[in-house]
Amino acid sequence: MDAVDDANQLRETSKNEVMSFFESSPLLKDAAEIEKSLKEFVDRNTSSSGNLNGKANRVVCITSGGTTVPLEKQGVRYIDNFSSGHRGAASTEYFLKAGYSVVFLYRRGTCQPFCSSLPDDPLLECFSVADDSSIEVDALHAETVKRAITENRAAVAEGILLKLPFTTIFEYLQILRLISVSLRDLGPSAIFFLAAAVSDFYIPWESMAFHKIQSASGPLDMRLVQVPKMLSVLRNEWAPMAFHISFKLETDRDILLANADMALKKYKMHMVIANELSTRKEEVIVVTEQEKVTVRRDNTWAGAEVECPLVELVVDRHSAYIKKFDA
Amino acid sequence: MDAVDDANQLRETSKNEVMSFFESSPLLKDAAEIEKSLKEFVDRNTSSSGNLNGKANRVVCITSGGTTVPLEKQGVRYIDNFSSGHRGAASTEYFLKAGYSVVFLYRRGTCQPFCSSLPDDPLLECFSVADDSSIEVDALHAETVKRAITENRAAVAEGILLKLPFTTIFEYLQILRLISVSLRDLGPSAIFFLAAAVSDFYIPWESMAFHKIQSASGPLDMRLVQVPKMLSVLRNEWAPMAFHISFKLETDRDILLANADMALKKYKMHMVIANELSTRKEEVIVVTEQEKVTVRRDNTWAGAEVECPLVELVVDRHSAYIKKFDA
Repeated sequence: MDAVDDANQLRETSKNEVMSFFESSPLLKDAAEIEKSLKEFVDRNTSSSGNLNGKANRVVCITSGGTTVPLEKQGVRYIDNFSSGHRGAASTEYFLKAGYSVVFLYRRGTCQPFCSSLPDDPLLECFSVADDSSIEVDALHAETVKRAITENRAAVAEGILLKLPFTTIFEYLQILRLISVSLRDLGPSAIFFLAAAVSDFYIPWESMAFHKIQSASGPLDMRLVQVPKMLSVLRNEWAPMAFHISFKLETDRDILLANADMALKKYKMHMVIANELSTRKEEVIVVTEQEKVTVRRDNTWAGAEVECPLVELVVDRHSAYIKKFDA
Repeated sequence: MDAVDDANQLRETSKNEVMSFFESSPLLKDAAEIEKSLKEFVDRNTSSSGNLNGKANRVVCITSGGTTVPLEKQGVRYIDNFSSGHRGAASTEYFLKAGYSVVFLYRRGTCQPFCSSLPDDPLLECFSVADDSSIEVDALHAETVKRAITENRAAVAEGILLKLPFTTIFEYLQILRLISVSLRDLGPSAIFFLAAAVSDFYIPWESMAFHKIQSASGPLDMRLVQVPKMLSVLRNEWAPMAFHISFKLETDRDILLANADMALKKYKMHMVIANELSTRKEEVIVVTEQEKVTVRRDNTWAGAEVECPLVELVVDRHSAYIKKFDA
């Protein structure tokens, strides 16, 4: 068998894995409603009266937070990938500022846009009730709280921010597929900014225990299988014209850069953003075919975030990408 | 070997397991601070000037939410036990109303007392900013929001509610041990109301991968070992005089009642509260040596919670328990 056959066979295997993943997934409950809100969102953002700030029609799908893998069908146990969702939430703000409309696909309960600098439990930590029984915000948080409430409401109301929540890997991948189909008409104007921490391993739904696993009988042996590499399917089939950015998070720097290079080549990403767990709030390395750029947060003031220069760089490279199609 | 030897050996084995669990656990970071706040809490609640509402000195330790089991030391993956923390948070409110002081040992990010009927994200869902830039609460949630802010602040400020957060099974069990030691002087006046969903299986810290597990090489086989049965240690050694209540949650009713009976006998609990996953907000079965009582929520009004009659029953049985010691 020669190399071309090998590649074809690899593609076939991976296609079968993807099909069987979706066929065996529990059905997405609100699929019709999600499709409807996506259609409205795309209509609004492609009409000429829509986004008029010079970057008309540019849309980014930002995924954020970790996916879970259930260990029992009717169960309480699952494997989770830790992610606060801070990167995705902060990036959403900067993309909105840059004139993009955003589909924010986020893990329920994780960090929301405009809220990333607030305490974990703003209701109990930022508010008090005055003597006249009106509600007051503590001076320290007043500006951030007001900004969070107004900007979030405004972006949702104007139709430039669509929020879609997920919990499990099954929900995440099904919604991501719906989004990619909806954004297809936007061609190169769409970005996939895949900051979510997606499970690598899962237990296929049909081989999962129905009831809660009993703890009486010794150690628990589990075999998890690999989640099919959906990056490849998203890139090549679901949204072949879009600008694709994936993320790599590792705790070991050498493994990190090797894996970032690998993802760039194997999945034909346009950009891989490499994070080291311990320094990820200070700097990231942006890896493309042409360059490796270290992006650092502006450390001359405390509130500066690395997502600000990162999104600037992404917007710049995306503009160049769109130009190639216009030419 | 006769039965007594058997029992002794079992106890020895279990003691060794417990010791080795704690010895191999990562150190609790804020241990000194937690001990200090517990000491202040106990001093305040045992002094004669403290709690003067007829149930002076009664304290309940309520555990709430699920514990996590890390799969990597420097890692991002963990196994989680799902629990919203609603039961523990609502019960805290009713115990405070009944005159108890509460140590609330809760999973970070789960439901907080006085907040259980609010939307998931109260900041973005309940508030708006008026034209004069003051912050307003939507009429629908105004009363609940005000109550949440004032009652939570008041309870913490008065020193009758001490909140201690955890994430991992290692943090949970170390803090629970600190609490049990602190409450020992209260004798039978203390309740342990163990509503947290505690992991049954874990990966011992010393056999855990240091870096993130790589996904390149086929399926992932994991062996998890049982967490030592701490209920038994808590009951017999850490807090032998206290009133102990544990919870059982199952998806299958027959397994549920069998397991509840087993927990009552094996761990000498004073009360086991049996929940079936699908009906747990409507009813629970309270199992003691003498009785099995089904407790239902008052379904004549929408806001009624099953925790209201449940805590009433617990307080009644706890009063009888204390009387036995007074006699």
